[in-house]
Amino acid sequence: MTDRTNLPNLVPNLVLVRHGQSQWNLENRFTGWIDVPLTEQGVAEAHSAGQQIREAGIEFDAAWTSVLKRAIHTLWIILDEIDAPWLPVHRDWRLNERHYGGLQGLNKAETAAQHGDEQVHIWRRSYDLPPPPLNDDHADHPRFDRRYAQIAAERLPAAESLKLTLERVLPCWQSEIAPALQSGQRLLVAAHGNSIRAIVKHLESISDDEITQLNIPTGMPLAYTLDPDMNVLDRRYLAGEEAAAEAAAAVAAQGRAS
Amino acid sequence: MTDRTNLPNLVPNLVLVRHGQSQWNLENRFTGWIDVPLTEQGVAEAHSAGQQIREAGIEFDAAWTSVLKRAIHTLWIILDEIDAPWLPVHRDWRLNERHYGGLQGLNKAETAAQHGDEQVHIWRRSYDLPPPPLNDDHADHPRFDRRYAQIAAERLPAAESLKLTLERVLPCWQSEIAPALQSGQRLLVAAHGNSIRAIVKHLESISDDEITQLNIPTGMPLAYTLDPDMNVLDRRYLAGEEAAAEAAAAVAAQGRAS
Repeated sequence: MTDRTNLPNLVPNLVLVRHGQSQWNLENRFTGWIDVPLTEQGVAEAHSAGQQIREAGIEFDAAWTSVLKRAIHTLWIILDEIDAPWLPVHRDWRLNERHYGGLQGLNKAETAAQHGDEQVHIWRRSYDLPPPPLNDDHADHPRFDRRYAQIAAERLPAAESLKLTLERVLPCWQSEIAPALQSGQRLLVAAHGNSIRAIVKHLESISDDEITQLNIPTGMPLAYTLDPDMNVLDRRYLAGEEAAAEAAAAVAAQGRAS
Repeated sequence: MTDRTNLPNLVPNLVLVRHGQSQWNLENRFTGWIDVPLTEQGVAEAHSAGQQIREAGIEFDAAWTSVLKRAIHTLWIILDEIDAPWLPVHRDWRLNERHYGGLQGLNKAETAAQHGDEQVHIWRRSYDLPPPPLNDDHADHPRFDRRYAQIAAERLPAAESLKLTLERVLPCWQSEIAPALQSGQRLLVAAHGNSIRAIVKHLESISDDEITQLNIPTGMPLAYTLDPDMNVLDRRYLAGEEAAAEAAAAVAAQGRAS
């Protein structure tokens, strides 16, 4: 057990966890909405996240995740670690990773060869410039995937900038997650680098420029204590700020991990 | 792949799966609402159930389970086998196993020593005689378990006959599962021997006497095709009737597997 004497009295009511390494992170390919599994390392990161939450003694009333298995499996592993697989789980497509359009499936070398290093750098660093979209008849287009069958076709992205990602994550926050927090529920969210960025940007009023520089470390629970108006009273990585900063730097050095 | 040429044209819209061996099944102890995990054999049974569903080519729109991990883990394994962990999952306490009251935790020998063989036989075979209840202040009473915190205290059982089990399962069927089927959804239900008995008794109009003799085999998906009035158009074990009958006989011979 962690020594809890130094922890603040503020009890977290929201914990965000970014999933760990997936098969395509490992292969350095753009993933986006392609439903690739965690690697063994990703599984280990999820166990570590769950252990950190258990040792911090944090309890939840419900959990949220995307409809992509790398986030769902991360959540399942955490629920097992905290002995709460019975918690209600809400899967919402709006918590998916940023849609990487025509770049999905390409590795770094392939992308640079097709589009040039400069262009790739712009897509990755720009806040509001989406990558080239998938064609409407591309087999990977979400309109062919039955998990999105209930979503109006015009809402389904074929490519997203970080800005567009935020614009579909925030309605989920506003209409589902924030009201649950305001009703007194304590929530766990297992999601992706860019859907978590969207929530963090909103909660902490981070600028458009700054958010593109913010790297969320994987498998490191980020715990918030929010008041009923969703003001941040406390925010901390359970592993400590230093460990989180090191892990975030590793994510940044890795190039692209989404 | 299964040879599908002999399968009927009726597409199942409801599949029921009873979880496989749990740790206390193995130790021959009354389990009820105690949240024990699957054994390795139980995990293997869940994989087998998932493979049968995949090979039959059955798709779902949502899944239902209890708030007990032996059913939830069975569901998770099946969702992975059919590559659909993204399916919405509804956890409902009313799909829990029969509550075995003061017998929970006792093995066969302990139960016979405390209550006599004859009495135990009566509890196990009777439709409407509940075992001795847990005391209100017993640590295992569901009112001390936060997963039931939202349920009115008077609805939480301290012991259930099969009849009482049915009386809390059926409102979940009537208010949640049947309406979802009627709206056109195809559903997977991963649950327990007695909560599945409740649904099967209702769907097939089985008498009170007969239902106490009906053993649901573990890890054997039971597929129904129901019309909008919930009449049974087709009913079959995906593994075949013979394999299911053998497995059910094994469950019966095992004595007590709930």
